[in-house]
Amino acid sequence: MIAEGTRESAEQRQHFLTTETLSGRTITEILDTAESFISVGEREIKKVPLLRGKTIVNLFFEASTRTRTTFEIAGKRLSADIININTSVSATQKGESLLDTVRNLEAMHTDLFVIRHPLSGAADLIARSVPRHVHVVNAGDGRHAHPTQGLLDMFTIRRYKGDFRRLTVAIVGDVLHSRVARSQIHALTALGTKEIRVIAPRSLMPAAVASLGVTPYTDMNAGLKDVDVVIMLRLQFERMSGALIPSAREYFALYGLTPDRLRHAHPQAIVMHPGPMNRGLEIASEVADGPQSVILPQVTNGIAVRMAILARLAGAQAAEAKTS
Amino acid sequence: MIAEGTRESAEQRQHFLTTETLSGRTITEILDTAESFISVGEREIKKVPLLRGKTIVNLFFEASTRTRTTFEIAGKRLSADIININTSVSATQKGESLLDTVRNLEAMHTDLFVIRHPLSGAADLIARSVPRHVHVVNAGDGRHAHPTQGLLDMFTIRRYKGDFRRLTVAIVGDVLHSRVARSQIHALTALGTKEIRVIAPRSLMPAAVASLGVTPYTDMNAGLKDVDVVIMLRLQFERMSGALIPSAREYFALYGLTPDRLRHAHPQAIVMHPGPMNRGLEIASEVADGPQSVILPQVTNGIAVRMAILARLAGAQAAEAKTS
Amino acid sequence: MIAEGTRESAEQRQHFLTTETLSGRTITEILDTAESFISVGEREIKKVPLLRGKTIVNLFFEASTRTRTTFEIAGKRLSADIININTSVSATQKGESLLDTVRNLEAMHTDLFVIRHPLSGAADLIARSVPRHVHVVNAGDGRHAHPTQGLLDMFTIRRYKGDFRRLTVAIVGDVLHSRVARSQIHALTALGTKEIRVIAPRSLMPAAVASLGVTPYTDMNAGLKDVDVVIMLRLQFERMSGALIPSAREYFALYGLTPDRLRHAHPQAIVMHPGPMNRGLEIASEVADGPQSVILPQVTNGIAVRMAILARLAGAQAAEAKTS
Repeated sequence: MIAEGTRESAEQRQHFLTTETLSGRTITEILDTAESFISVGEREIKKVPLLRGKTIVNLFFEASTRTRTTFEIAGKRLSADIININTSVSATQKGESLLDTVRNLEAMHTDLFVIRHPLSGAADLIARSVPRHVHVVNAGDGRHAHPTQGLLDMFTIRRYKGDFRRLTVAIVGDVLHSRVARSQIHALTALGTKEIRVIAPRSLMPAAVASLGVTPYTDMNAGLKDVDVVIMLRLQFERMSGALIPSAREYFALYGLTPDRLRHAHPQAIVMHPGPMNRGLEIASEVADGPQSVILPQVTNGIAVRMAILARLAGAQAAEAKTS
Repeated sequence: MIAEGTRESAEQRQHFLTTETLSGRTITEILDTAESFISVGEREIKKVPLLRGKTIVNLFFEASTRTRTTFEIAGKRLSADIININTSVSATQKGESLLDTVRNLEAMHTDLFVIRHPLSGAADLIARSVPRHVHVVNAGDGRHAHPTQGLLDMFTIRRYKGDFRRLTVAIVGDVLHSRVARSQIHALTALGTKEIRVIAPRSLMPAAVASLGVTPYTDMNAGLKDVDVVIMLRLQFERMSGALIPSAREYFALYGLTPDRLRHAHPQAIVMHPGPMNRGLEIASEVADGPQSVILPQVTNGIAVRMAILARLAGAQAAEAKTS
Repeated sequence: MIAEGTRESAEQRQHFLTTETLSGRTITEILDTAESFISVGEREIKKVPLLRGKTIVNLFFEASTRTRTTFEIAGKRLSADIININTSVSATQKGESLLDTVRNLEAMHTDLFVIRHPLSGAADLIARSVPRHVHVVNAGDGRHAHPTQGLLDMFTIRRYKGDFRRLTVAIVGDVLHSRVARSQIHALTALGTKEIRVIAPRSLMPAAVASLGVTPYTDMNAGLKDVDVVIMLRLQFERMSGALIPSAREYFALYGLTPDRLRHAHPQAIVMHPGPMNRGLEIASEVADGPQSVILPQVTNGIAVRMAILARLAGAQAAEAKTS
């Protein structure tokens, strides 16, 4: 177990915005709580009353069926009322500003916002503007962070591979545009991971990657050598400006995860992907559906981890802690 | 009562995909259960706890306010949590495959999918891929089947006209493109209906219609002669390729159900339509809103029948049956 | 308290369509009920079981995140099941008529419709067609009325300024296109407001405004002189045909509410706006976010007032009253 002296900041008790400032201890606490929620999803009656009478707003400025759905299911299993608002940034710009939108929703005595926004920093901006009893969860902001994805990945790694201090983890693909990769790197670091590698073509490798304490590789076979965990990233075409990769076929030949390539990793290595996958582009179907893949368990774990995060922020015990 | 030796297949206990393979006994059981749910809609508190803690996903790849809403209401009256996902086939093709979408939702420990899809066979495809504890209800797939509509129509006929073995039923209009007609014909046959007629212009009459055991008519007056039940179909312009009908006026003159035309049927005949109606095209408003119309009771019955189907698949008793 | 001999009409007990026919007594009763619901929004568990097992349909033919959300939250806090239907008028026209849509939803044993529609009179049309046990709430119809907004504004004025018989209220801006202004004027009149002023450029002043018993002003400073309440209206560009205002800058110079301009009002005057605001057009941000603004409390009050209206129409006590 990771034990550090760091105490949680007030912000960390109120919001969940990034993995960058989380201590290993805080992450471990959240993963432990998530562990207790795994059983809820396996029961006949998948419901606990922790957030009964709370109102959670899913405020999505980017389309996302999967993340929206997991938060909606997580909230409903905690017995909260969920309000879905799917909108586009242009609609907001025309009508009223982002902060006006949030202030209005806040005035309706809503308790927690789950926010996805194409601009980096959007969730932080909102978090700084809400009163103490309102909570903000970042469900992805631009290229910046996707911390609940980061934590569900840590949860998955811990379940399959145990102690982070013995693990070598490779993150592969479009690191440049990936908010997921950023959140993973910070969390892996906080949890004391032995070695974190990043594998990408030069055009998709962030300039300052080494300063994050990770080892960059442009050769995939070398980067995968003996790793315990392979995290594939989605090619984020929608965030690319200009041609950053050669043809799809060439990309797959160099950086696609095939069964052959996976043999460079440790024989018991697990393969992860945050989804949705581009099959045949960053990952071969034989690997995605193969015995080392834990891609669907990631989704299952996502519900439990999101329940843990929602309950931690807005649950009755959280409220008690705040008033004591 | 219809009593047959056929035992339900495992598939029929797990999914609800078509009326084609249902025995009269199974249909009768479902209609009997639906009968017990009719009273729920008439109570002050329209709620029973049968599916509390279950998660139902309404996965609609075609827009449909009415069917989506009836399933949502049916699920909520059974106390289930409902997740609505409205998407388009093109979005799925671009992002991830249909099966990836379903596998992801399944990994969230969802219990039942209600699926509408423009491709015939989509619900079957999904049903074959899910594990034993996940249920699939076909809410309309291409031209193939719309079995919950078929059963709510049987429920309505039974309520108004009693024993199927004494009834002559005419199905009128765009049979060629109608998944509803297919589901009705199979269910009417299983229930031992005395005579099933199909009335349509040649261009909208399926080639193999006689092999279904029904009597085809191209003359509407002859086809309506003394029938007990008139089921009008919606002209499915959106599924027609090319000009299959003459002008709207000419179609109405030949196949529109007017009060005059209805006089060819039995004086106590009921008039049905799955909705939404094209008034003045396949049916005159005087008939749609007239004393023989049971079009709105069909909608009411649709809630009860869908509750019966959802409860049968995912209810606690169903679960018990599975484990015993 | 306003005490009048008028008894509520049957329509007023069944529907909530306009403030035009409401007596001061009825309005006061609703505001008193809303007062009791304010505390629900401030509790740890924001939920009362008054409408448990009832089905409310939010039927929106115009996009409106804010109003839809407040009704959804109000309904959920009363424990009702909420069905959201967002559609466009063109889709309705193509498919089935407005009344067919409503009759179908009604056949699903839904209890209450919250309707927003671009055509004036749409909610009345529907209210006249539904049976006795179904309730209709007008959430805005064309330029005609937005009575729940009108009542939440009365609630807000009463909370901050007390007795209407001592108050001077100015309504400022695009009165011509404002259904909100109409609903406010009728409610203010019914509550015995001392003086109601309307401030607008000639091009946005309704011809028959004086017949409503209000005093028209085209000069803003004169109109604001010593008023207790300033209600700013949103410029409804989407309802304007042709150029009714000069440039935005010129409009703001003449009719925008700035701190300087607000000094003409009573020093304790409150500033209201139904939202969403066009900042820098009809109102300066310094005023919108300033100490006299009660714009966010309006939103909070909107939940309580809508809960009061929903509970009054569809609650168990309402049901008792009907059967006695």
